[in-house]
Amino acid sequence: MGEIAGPLAAHAAATHLSRHGEGPGRLLGGSPAVAPSRVLVIGGGAVGTQAALLALGMQAEVTILDMSATRIRQLDALFGGRARVLMSNAATLDAELRQADVVIGAVLVPGRAAPKVVTREQLAILKPHALLIDVAIDQGGAFETSRPTTYESPIIVVDGVRHYCVANMPGDVPHTSTLALTNATAIYIRQIADLGVEQALATNPALARGVNTRAGHIVYPAMADAFPDIVGTPQTVSA
Amino acid sequence: MGEIAGPLAAHAAATHLSRHGEGPGRLLGGSPAVAPSRVLVIGGGAVGTQAALLALGMQAEVTILDMSATRIRQLDALFGGRARVLMSNAATLDAELRQADVVIGAVLVPGRAAPKVVTREQLAILKPHALLIDVAIDQGGAFETSRPTTYESPIIVVDGVRHYCVANMPGDVPHTSTLALTNATAIYIRQIADLGVEQALATNPALARGVNTRAGHIVYPAMADAFPDIVGTPQTVSA
Amino acid sequence: MGEIAGPLAAHAAATHLSRHGEGPGRLLGGSPAVAPSRVLVIGGGAVGTQAALLALGMQAEVTILDMSATRIRQLDALFGGRARVLMSNAATLDAELRQADVVIGAVLVPGRAAPKVVTREQLAILKPHALLIDVAIDQGGAFETSRPTTYESPIIVVDGVRHYCVANMPGDVPHTSTLALTNATAIYIRQIADLGVEQALATNPALARGVNTRAGHIVYPAMADAFPDIVGTPQTVSA
Amino acid sequence: MGEIAGPLAAHAAATHLSRHGEGPGRLLGGSPAVAPSRVLVIGGGAVGTQAALLALGMQAEVTILDMSATRIRQLDALFGGRARVLMSNAATLDAELRQADVVIGAVLVPGRAAPKVVTREQLAILKPHALLIDVAIDQGGAFETSRPTTYESPIIVVDGVRHYCVANMPGDVPHTSTLALTNATAIYIRQIADLGVEQALATNPALARGVNTRAGHIVYPAMADAFPDIVGTPQTVSA
Amino acid sequence: MGEIAGPLAAHAAATHLSRHGEGPGRLLGGSPAVAPSRVLVIGGGAVGTQAALLALGMQAEVTILDMSATRIRQLDALFGGRARVLMSNAATLDAELRQADVVIGAVLVPGRAAPKVVTREQLAILKPHALLIDVAIDQGGAFETSRPTTYESPIIVVDGVRHYCVANMPGDVPHTSTLALTNATAIYIRQIADLGVEQALATNPALARGVNTRAGHIVYPAMADAFPDIVGTPQTVSA
Amino acid sequence: MGEIAGPLAAHAAATHLSRHGEGPGRLLGGSPAVAPSRVLVIGGGAVGTQAALLALGMQAEVTILDMSATRIRQLDALFGGRARVLMSNAATLDAELRQADVVIGAVLVPGRAAPKVVTREQLAILKPHALLIDVAIDQGGAFETSRPTTYESPIIVVDGVRHYCVANMPGDVPHTSTLALTNATAIYIRQIADLGVEQALATNPALARGVNTRAGHIVYPAMADAFPDIVGTPQTVSA
Repeated sequence: MGEIAGPLAAHAAATHLSRHGEGPGRLLGGSPAVAPSRVLVIGGGAVGTQAALLALGMQAEVTILDMSATRIRQLDALFGGRARVLMSNAATLDAELRQADVVIGAVLVPGRAAPKVVTREQLAILKPHALLIDVAIDQGGAFETSRPTTYESPIIVVDGVRHYCVANMPGDVPHTSTLALTNATAIYIRQIADLGVEQALATNPALARGVNTRAGHIVYPAMADAFPDIVGTPQTVSA
Repeated sequence: MGEIAGPLAAHAAATHLSRHGEGPGRLLGGSPAVAPSRVLVIGGGAVGTQAALLALGMQAEVTILDMSATRIRQLDALFGGRARVLMSNAATLDAELRQADVVIGAVLVPGRAAPKVVTREQLAILKPHALLIDVAIDQGGAFETSRPTTYESPIIVVDGVRHYCVANMPGDVPHTSTLALTNATAIYIRQIADLGVEQALATNPALARGVNTRAGHIVYPAMADAFPDIVGTPQTVSA
Repeated sequence: MGEIAGPLAAHAAATHLSRHGEGPGRLLGGSPAVAPSRVLVIGGGAVGTQAALLALGMQAEVTILDMSATRIRQLDALFGGRARVLMSNAATLDAELRQADVVIGAVLVPGRAAPKVVTREQLAILKPHALLIDVAIDQGGAFETSRPTTYESPIIVVDGVRHYCVANMPGDVPHTSTLALTNATAIYIRQIADLGVEQALATNPALARGVNTRAGHIVYPAMADAFPDIVGTPQTVSA
Repeated sequence: MGEIAGPLAAHAAATHLSRHGEGPGRLLGGSPAVAPSRVLVIGGGAVGTQAALLALGMQAEVTILDMSATRIRQLDALFGGRARVLMSNAATLDAELRQADVVIGAVLVPGRAAPKVVTREQLAILKPHALLIDVAIDQGGAFETSRPTTYESPIIVVDGVRHYCVANMPGDVPHTSTLALTNATAIYIRQIADLGVEQALATNPALARGVNTRAGHIVYPAMADAFPDIVGTPQTVSA
Repeated sequence: MGEIAGPLAAHAAATHLSRHGEGPGRLLGGSPAVAPSRVLVIGGGAVGTQAALLALGMQAEVTILDMSATRIRQLDALFGGRARVLMSNAATLDAELRQADVVIGAVLVPGRAAPKVVTREQLAILKPHALLIDVAIDQGGAFETSRPTTYESPIIVVDGVRHYCVANMPGDVPHTSTLALTNATAIYIRQIADLGVEQALATNPALARGVNTRAGHIVYPAMADAFPDIVGTPQTVSA
Repeated sequence: MGEIAGPLAAHAAATHLSRHGEGPGRLLGGSPAVAPSRVLVIGGGAVGTQAALLALGMQAEVTILDMSATRIRQLDALFGGRARVLMSNAATLDAELRQADVVIGAVLVPGRAAPKVVTREQLAILKPHALLIDVAIDQGGAFETSRPTTYESPIIVVDGVRHYCVANMPGDVPHTSTLALTNATAIYIRQIADLGVEQALATNPALARGVNTRAGHIVYPAMADAFPDIVGTPQTVSA
């Protein structure tokens, strides 16, 4: 779903820089002779990459931070100089946060709680009108101060800084999301329909690796770590 | 202001294709393997061109119609094949309207009422979920059925078709609009400040050509034609 | 040889849309203000990708269908929005076939008979002047109704639909094909020359995997499946 | 019509480098690791520019010669380094002719006979398999040795060098040509229909400047110069 | 010659950011994950545009300032978002000077002394290692503190800030400069050779407008303004 | 460090084609209407690719030779037709050497002596003013006639051909090199600091594979092969 949430984060940036989005009244991409807004994307995976591509397409100035030298090389090849791609470390993060009009937190680790990449203390170094967009909110949030919000009331303000933390962003474009999800999963669904669950899991290791809960227990290791209280929940129904 | 309104029209397209924008729940640019939405831009001037550039940047599929062969060549060079640029005529317009998810009316003629490029009858050939965006609403509107709306309540529905007709769109990004306008006009303002109005008009023909009203009369010919009732309004104040 | 056949398929599309190619008299890429022809490429492997790249370079409007989500992401990155890349399924294929001016069948599976991606029934939904180009003809053809043709008489008409099914397309550009093939195989030829066939096969598993026939038998499994009658042919010559 | 003839010249280059086009059996654009063919376009007007764009799109290596420093700057901006754009002079022309696989003569002067840019003597310096394509053949030809040919028998050989000199190339794609021509002329046709010929000519100087013959005389000066014998032809019908 | 001097200014930036160029030891374009240097180009004419294009090609981060809204639009179209193009005013200049690693002064006015765009006071706001490159040095210099230097000793230091002010930069690439100049002037030289000076000037107003000195006097108005002492110099030779 | 040395090689090409770099006085990228210089890059790894990207960015005409069909495909995708990418073999190398203005030797094999790709005999076929740049000099050099030089005296002349063979090129941009190296190695340094050398080597096989010398012996196999005399050097200090 990252390929859906990434573009939606860029859309949200445009909306909430404008007045009717309760922002500072800026056009994300500037205009001839007026400098564009600066978007800082933290995390260069699928979500962050798509967010950056859309923000660039909307003529923003974009910086992406990632921690993997390999991924940075891939992103450099992909963006061909249009976005700044930098190694994430404390000094670089600090310098970039001070200049950003929009910060997109896109540090999703599959099946794990997202790491906190901006602390409460760091909110103080942001520009007065800066906007935080937390695309990792469904995994617990990329910013220490994030709390889930909704499309009806998308923004919370913490220490004077606006946070956009809408949960389940892809739910806003169900037509596209459903097609995308079906494209990705149809092959597995067909196997389950043909073979039954047990047989399909036995046959296809990729499918087996994707099981999250079974017989009432969390069986996916990373998720079990993230929600330790739930793993052992007693159960009365056998699967 | 067209360079401001054009991008805002593309932003509005993205917002109002989504559910929270009361649209069909589509992502403007699609996603890998899911086809993008089709945006039809009518009018290839500054507004239409910027709207098309942003929509392309947001990964929509874009067609632009214009009536000038010269302008079409310029647009072809500018877009380099990424947008379809077609001569506007009845047959082409009909075919494109039937396929569009979004139609952006961008046929602004400086100082004149905008021509009506989509009639009420033509609403019937649009897709059920199609969205009309009328960037020419400040000049009277590009669609026969347009009526001005506001950012608070941006959309009206006529014959089942949604129309986005927010008046004074650039007012939503005043920070950017003001800088852009100042950049464009500072040279004239300085002349007026230095020379006084009368002397500045006498010295600079470009400035003189831009006068809209004077001594209580509309003096700009195209505007006078558009608002015949107002031209001769009696006045008591001499300029 | 796919990197040769793909571009040749795009050349053939241009030729056979023109009058002297017995086509509808269209320029593949249109002209300023005249819409380009639509090319549908079925299969996003090496052949289909090269065919699409050339067709785009000739300013056609291009859609590529593939069945692999992974490959679709790669193609999206490669084409950067210039071609539409869609998941191949029954609904999408039907919709695209109805709009195509040219359909290029490029579903080659190494060493296997090509799957039939357009049935005889589906010919009825094509545009009257549509042209089918079957680059998979050497593996049995991608369209149910394909039959091999030659450069002298390249086109057959089935149910009123033109099929271009020239066998061994790369044979038309032997200068380029030979250099390309030599570049790819020189490393193996040198090994065989140095070591002899048996020793080279024993040393280099990649070479061993490429053996098609040996001692008069088909030994490559996929080919043996495709030509079951031939596998067991008696032989009198030992290898 | 140059925007039609230019692409067709590039198509012809691809066809006649192949064996079935009686050429040397090369793929115009080469293939990975095999060098592309070199295309020399003489004349950077509308025809030459479109021919070059298509040849680049087909992955050829392209050089364009023009005599105008202003036009060369425009072409440099348009091609952005993908084609070599050089000032046409004797030394450069000689060097480029020696390296070209295809030479496209595109030196059309509106309403005048085309200048001869390659002499019979210069044929001797071409590569053995080089192909000349004369897009200016309808204005008398850009090469000294050109003679008009047809799509049925497109090529003549002079001093061992193949010349492609098909007259009225756009006639091969009448569907596209007609739409393009109609787009460009509809505005004039409507004026003539509304006002009659004489009134339309009196009203619209652009239209008046385009008259070629009138009352049986050639009245367009450049054409009169080119066909001096015909200008004074006696006439019996008054216009 | 601006199209020569512009690229040379970008080359000089790369050399003098390195240690052997007595700079801070930075690679102009950075490297994957290391931020590129920031280049500020003041003036978006031919020189500044070419300097910016080369600096971008060397992967620097580039901002261009210009004072003309029309030119800014052209540059925006040319750079397509890769460079930031901003209206030059006091506030923007101040902000950009503070961030620049390299400042290229490219404010050439044909035939006039260049305006001073950076004052001595402003040197204090530059980064410690910033490098000024004055391409306008042949017209008196774009920076208040510039003094002409040579390729042997290219840099002077004023108030701790390095200035690169090599006079006649194109003289370093005489092979290219001579060809470029000859291309541009051959048409005039031929006229003078054919007609003699007086007749050529009488025939070709473009040539006449280019005369700088005549009969020992400066006759080109802008140059006469710039060098008032020289205009009236007595003379003994009549032209 | 290849991502540093590659761009520096392109910078050196620009400098040493100019007069003050004791070259032929050419601008690397040419100018409008003057052909750019031709740069031949031998080796399409990280160094060669970055050298080629920069040379293209400086508007040179670039050819890259590589011996791997797989790598050639990757380079073709990366350069998208802007550089010629060819299979390296004797015939192609000979043809390209004859046309090159600059030859960059970038055939680095990790931990091994570089192969000699240009022999002393081949110097005779180069253009008189051609410049050889040997980026592999730290691994023994890519040209038979290379000898290490310094930034103070960067060029040696052998058989009339200039060789640029500066050792440790990245040492010229220590600010960028240090950041790049730290980005790449910080993860290993942290492990060694946390665990001690022995434990870190035991834990992380990637780290263990990178050990060059240990207890006074060369332990990295490829380096041991390259310096056979040193491997067995007696030692008195235990590690």
